[in-house]
Amino acid sequence: MDLRDFQQLIEKMYSRKDRERGAAGTFLWLMEEVGELAAAVGEGADEAKKRDEFADVLAWLATLANVEGVDLSDALQAKYGRGCPGCGKMVCECKGKP
Amino acid sequence: MDLRDFQQLIEKMYSRKDRERGAAGTFLWLMEEVGELAAAVGEGADEAKKRDEFADVLAWLATLANVEGVDLSDALQAKYGRGCPGCGKMVCECKGKP
Repeated sequence: MDLRDFQQLIEKMYSRKDRERGAAGTFLWLMEEVGELAAAVGEGADEAKKRDEFADVLAWLATLANVEGVDLSDALQAKYGRGCPGCGKMVCECKGKP
Repeated sequence: MDLRDFQQLIEKMYSRKDRERGAAGTFLWLMEEVGELAAAVGEGADEAKKRDEFADVLAWLATLANVEGVDLSDALQAKYGRGCPGCGKMVCECKGKP
């Protein structure tokens, strides 16, 4: 799936509510979904459940990006499109970070 | 950017370290980046800083998905590809949720 298409899908689906809620309220919802993802990973939930929770976190991250006016696709390209931001290599060779 | 391509780029870039660190350790890094995103949003950071933090959260979410064996693109398609998971509409009409 194209990330920009997905972000626009979320914009179309939820933008009216998102604008009313604002960034702080949207962040709260994102955190709720992050908690559900933590539970799914920690409990070793089945594949379908984990997929579901990853999708929700990504959807709320896209929502927050919409509220903040950030294009996620551009953001990824700028930071990771030319290699690891730390060492510049396509296969990271950074020392120190685990 | 295609989301599957990005997830594979992250896999190529970091998979050796990711496998060693495991899901719990990867989640910790994800949370550090979520905190940095919260700071950028809360402080009203400039566009470039916010873009940077959104990219990092998404990169660590992709890393965690790699560790857990989840394809983010498939996950989004399954949950949001046919409309809002709550009401089934392409423009959400769910009641109750803000």
